[in-house]
Amino acid sequence: MEHNGFTLWFTGLSGAGKSTLSTRVADELRRRGVKVEILDGDEVRTNLSKGLGFSKEDRDTNIKRIGYVCKLLTRNGVVAISAAISPYREARDYNRAQIGRFIEIYVECSIEELTRRDVKGLYKKALAGELPNFTGVSDPYEPPLKPEIAVNSGTESVDQSFRRILDYLEQRGWIPKADVPSGAGCGCKH
Amino acid sequence: MEHNGFTLWFTGLSGAGKSTLSTRVADELRRRGVKVEILDGDEVRTNLSKGLGFSKEDRDTNIKRIGYVCKLLTRNGVVAISAAISPYREARDYNRAQIGRFIEIYVECSIEELTRRDVKGLYKKALAGELPNFTGVSDPYEPPLKPEIAVNSGTESVDQSFRRILDYLEQRGWIPKADVPSGAGCGCKH
Repeated sequence: MEHNGFTLWFTGLSGAGKSTLSTRVADELRRRGVKVEILDGDEVRTNLSKGLGFSKEDRDTNIKRIGYVCKLLTRNGVVAISAAISPYREARDYNRAQIGRFIEIYVECSIEELTRRDVKGLYKKALAGELPNFTGVSDPYEPPLKPEIAVNSGTESVDQSFRRILDYLEQRGWIPKADVPSGAGCGCKH
Repeated sequence: MEHNGFTLWFTGLSGAGKSTLSTRVADELRRRGVKVEILDGDEVRTNLSKGLGFSKEDRDTNIKRIGYVCKLLTRNGVVAISAAISPYREARDYNRAQIGRFIEIYVECSIEELTRRDVKGLYKKALAGELPNFTGVSDPYEPPLKPEIAVNSGTESVDQSFRRILDYLEQRGWIPKADVPSGAGCGCKH
């Protein structure tokens, strides 16, 4: 079965949950027979953007480069998932225009909550002024104005956010509905 | 009909005919219902490798970056075609190992013939010492040792080279054979 490609574009601060959610969504889509590629921030920095820094210009180059690869995948029937921070609205909107079949998912989370988690200790450092170009603290983050989907990892569980993304994609026909599990019966009363 | 992806990796000097041949092959493959993407040197320099120069290191980065995108396309059922010079053997072999389903096409042409054509006047300039880092004159070109296909645009017509590439791909089952054209009749004597 051949599916039509599209791009799922996650955006949000470091630690907000983009990678976790994108992996959950990718796994579920693959389970349903959909072709998926995740372009994660770190993998992309290695394979596409080595040498780029964190100035606005370099960040935009990085994001447009990911967008170019998403475009190639999308028009060949693959679901391309980007999970890079992508702080600037203009670069995201550029990709939207280039790709066409583009669904933006804003993974929101407050700085307070991110500082509380702070798995890598980066927020404390950034708030102490020790990290220049740290998105959301010492570098800008421009939230989407009209994302197709907005989730909040400070107020929802991963399961809830995941479910809302899946519902959106199913209800609008982007992905096939899950098959009824083979042991689940038909749901009627006999 | 879903086809298995692979990468067609053209390599050869500037002006040897990589773009011409890759476009011919891509058009024919599309006609047969195969999904194809061409990653041409110039388009890639714009979309993936802006800022890279022509040092060995930068050239290798460029070639591996193209290889990464070819890998993503190939494993999703697309025929990825690279038509960049790709002068260094090690970088091509790296891509071969990464991609797996990899067919190298050496487009050979002598410097004498290229200088005779010299559409952009670059060979004369390079031979006069005015162009540093010009592949084949002032910068190295390492020909493939065991390319799957070798064509020579100095001694063969474009049609001949094109035909040999198609024959190779058909005979080894990489692509479907051409349908008999609808008006061609059945070929028997009645």
